[in-house]
Amino acid sequence: MSIFEPSVVQAGTLQVMAELPTLEWITDSRVERLSQDFYWFSPILKRQLEGLRADAVVRPKTEDQIRAVVAACARLGLPITVRGSGTGNYGQCMPLHGGVILDLSAYNQLLWCKPGVARAQAGIRMMEMDRQTQPQGWELRCVPSTFRSATLGGLYGGGFGGVGSINHGPLASTGNVLGVRAMSIEPEPRVVELRAPEALLLHHVYGTNGLVLELEVGLAPAHPWLEAIVCFDNFDAAIEFGDALASAQGLVKKSVTLLAAPIPDLLMQAVPPLAGVMQTGSHAVFVLVAEFGEPGFQQLVAEFGGQVTLRKTAGEVKSSNRTIVEYTWNHTTLHAMKADKALTYIQSGFQAGRHVAQAKELRALLGDEVLVHLEFIRTKEGAMNCSGLQLVRYTSDERLNQIMQIHREHGVYIANPHVYIVEDGKQGQVNPDVVATKLRFDPQGLLNPGKLRGWEQREQIMADAAAGKVSLATLPSF
Amino acid sequence: MSIFEPSVVQAGTLQVMAELPTLEWITDSRVERLSQDFYWFSPILKRQLEGLRADAVVRPKTEDQIRAVVAACARLGLPITVRGSGTGNYGQCMPLHGGVILDLSAYNQLLWCKPGVARAQAGIRMMEMDRQTQPQGWELRCVPSTFRSATLGGLYGGGFGGVGSINHGPLASTGNVLGVRAMSIEPEPRVVELRAPEALLLHHVYGTNGLVLELEVGLAPAHPWLEAIVCFDNFDAAIEFGDALASAQGLVKKSVTLLAAPIPDLLMQAVPPLAGVMQTGSHAVFVLVAEFGEPGFQQLVAEFGGQVTLRKTAGEVKSSNRTIVEYTWNHTTLHAMKADKALTYIQSGFQAGRHVAQAKELRALLGDEVLVHLEFIRTKEGAMNCSGLQLVRYTSDERLNQIMQIHREHGVYIANPHVYIVEDGKQGQVNPDVVATKLRFDPQGLLNPGKLRGWEQREQIMADAAAGKVSLATLPSF
Repeated sequence: MSIFEPSVVQAGTLQVMAELPTLEWITDSRVERLSQDFYWFSPILKRQLEGLRADAVVRPKTEDQIRAVVAACARLGLPITVRGSGTGNYGQCMPLHGGVILDLSAYNQLLWCKPGVARAQAGIRMMEMDRQTQPQGWELRCVPSTFRSATLGGLYGGGFGGVGSINHGPLASTGNVLGVRAMSIEPEPRVVELRAPEALLLHHVYGTNGLVLELEVGLAPAHPWLEAIVCFDNFDAAIEFGDALASAQGLVKKSVTLLAAPIPDLLMQAVPPLAGVMQTGSHAVFVLVAEFGEPGFQQLVAEFGGQVTLRKTAGEVKSSNRTIVEYTWNHTTLHAMKADKALTYIQSGFQAGRHVAQAKELRALLGDEVLVHLEFIRTKEGAMNCSGLQLVRYTSDERLNQIMQIHREHGVYIANPHVYIVEDGKQGQVNPDVVATKLRFDPQGLLNPGKLRGWEQREQIMADAAAGKVSLATLPSF
Repeated sequence: MSIFEPSVVQAGTLQVMAELPTLEWITDSRVERLSQDFYWFSPILKRQLEGLRADAVVRPKTEDQIRAVVAACARLGLPITVRGSGTGNYGQCMPLHGGVILDLSAYNQLLWCKPGVARAQAGIRMMEMDRQTQPQGWELRCVPSTFRSATLGGLYGGGFGGVGSINHGPLASTGNVLGVRAMSIEPEPRVVELRAPEALLLHHVYGTNGLVLELEVGLAPAHPWLEAIVCFDNFDAAIEFGDALASAQGLVKKSVTLLAAPIPDLLMQAVPPLAGVMQTGSHAVFVLVAEFGEPGFQQLVAEFGGQVTLRKTAGEVKSSNRTIVEYTWNHTTLHAMKADKALTYIQSGFQAGRHVAQAKELRALLGDEVLVHLEFIRTKEGAMNCSGLQLVRYTSDERLNQIMQIHREHGVYIANPHVYIVEDGKQGQVNPDVVATKLRFDPQGLLNPGKLRGWEQREQIMADAAAGKVSLATLPSF
């Protein structure tokens, strides 16, 4: 029997609600949606996680309200699952043992913006944050294609990088996250500011080792971004163009996405505004380049023999309220799955420098079964590389795993999006620092219990640390 | 007998002066200084070029004045040597056959500045250009340490990259130079706008294949730059810190310079404001990082065990009118030679990715004879690399050449600063496009005759092009 007995959790949740009647509680049919994310991108997760549901969702507006919920849950030993807008896709914010969902989307103020840095509450939507900072000439360094609804805390908790990582690398690159304010899950919650590098101890573990209240992040200059789609008959020309454009340091850009055939056809079929904007059967490169960089961009297009089939100025993008960003990253997956329900996807990281050769090799090997979607980004170490969000024609779990294994055997890292345990998506590696941080911030193990396998090894990890076998990051005092 | 008989050239120069009496002509003792640059950094060039002198210097203020001088010289077949402020150091603007020096430093207006791009007359001093564009939030992407006096046209004509190339690569990277307006050297001079990539056909050939009047260049956001010096006991730690900082894409920076021991000691000896600011015997890294990036910078300093011995905010830099930029690039050479007259230097380009290993290897091999000075920059292809401006304890020409050869044998490219023929500094390679461009813009071969060896091969090159053996860039019509 689980230590989280459903009936006990349910009763406890009702008790917390009764204790805190002035908070915004949701218990109606919306709970189901608020217990989910885009886990259904994976046929495996769809099977495993379908039907998971919290007992209630609470949407606090202030730190005091958050503290009150956390204190009450901790006192009663109830599971808490933190979420932003639920745009992630590993079942990241789906409660394995019910309890309370702490929806931070109403805790969403921009606290301040200075040149190059801003601080906001975790629940701020990234589009809203950009809207507030852009008039000062600054914007977020890295946003997901879901920036319209996704929250900053959600990106930190469950994201890796995104649009803009072509300049600044993943979120974890030094300088991108300067600090976070985190709360412990205890009957008397405590709060501490973690500055970088410790500010990254709660990053990309889906809110399982602490509760992030505020984030201080680096900003990038907000340029007027020209949006363009460049079509190629030839895959090699398309990827080489993408790589050259991505690497050209004199060309100021925000993203370069390669969608190999037949992805452009799928998008044109699924997304009415894209109908006819690409050549049928072509390989497309989606580009955001600074308007003042257009001459150099056009020079590279000519050099590689591409054809610009869509071109929108920053003004046109703004007035249309439609951006090609929303067809890249996992929006590509979303739209392609609309056109073909049998598709799923994988996530991969190539080897910087070998990335183009690896991508060509794997495409030749896997043919029509894997549809190549690459996003060019800089690595943490500053080298040009690409991340793959390849679409896969799903036939069986075995074949899907085999395809991932083939990538690994060719030196390509797989961030497996078909597993819901944090470590399973990261080649199974337990991070002792993550576990030690959870011991500090969530000593009772209430944050979405069951997601972090390393938690089961906490005693061993702390014993190893005491014996000097493992060196752990030093956390500041509360 | 040279086709440029000194007495004929001298008489012709007097005739041009007489024809154009309203222009600013210089014929007094200043001609000697205006016929020189920093060629004396090289003991070899010092011997070869000492005493070269133009017959007169002219300092036009308008395109019409430039046109009048060019027309008159072309009609009389007089050598013309174009110069900016003469801060180069390959004898680049030293007239091999006398004649007229066309000093463009009074042709110096900023024509316009838009977000990300500006256009100026070739003679504008880079500090002055920055002064005019910075209030709009923009500045030059790449400046030499001589930015205070050096001209934009001079950088284009004789420079490769500089402070800022750590972000945008060398000047030749796509997007950095958008266009140039060039004049032909003919009795009736013609003018044409060359857009990129043709805009680079006159780049880095020291004004020998055409006369550049205006330049349109990409700009970078003007951030408040914090200046710091970080000292290390250990060379490996210093170079690894420099490389990590240079590569960290989340840390916004403008330059990273490594000065291995004993260069810091030489600088402290030669430059009064630097006395005592570094640890004696240490290896120093000079850094310009955005003020908002300081936390991440300090994080890396701690990680690599460095000690910040100088830290000046952008405001302090501005009010002191003193910047550490003026101790980097070839200012390091200048100051070190003040402290030790037996020093000279070499210029080198490492292999991106192998650059740190190569630098360690060569330092181990060459010991105290070569003092390591590295500037971290991105390559044209966007990879992190470094350029070396190593100081060399000069003993003989043979040993100096041997040291350069040892670098080549270790895979390091040498831009030989001890030769005055353009191609000799570039491994002897003749560039057919450069020669074809000169045929177009300088059909009589009047631009500092004797500097461009490829000119002697012009007939063969054009015959090869006609026979389809060589493919030449297409130039626009006048």
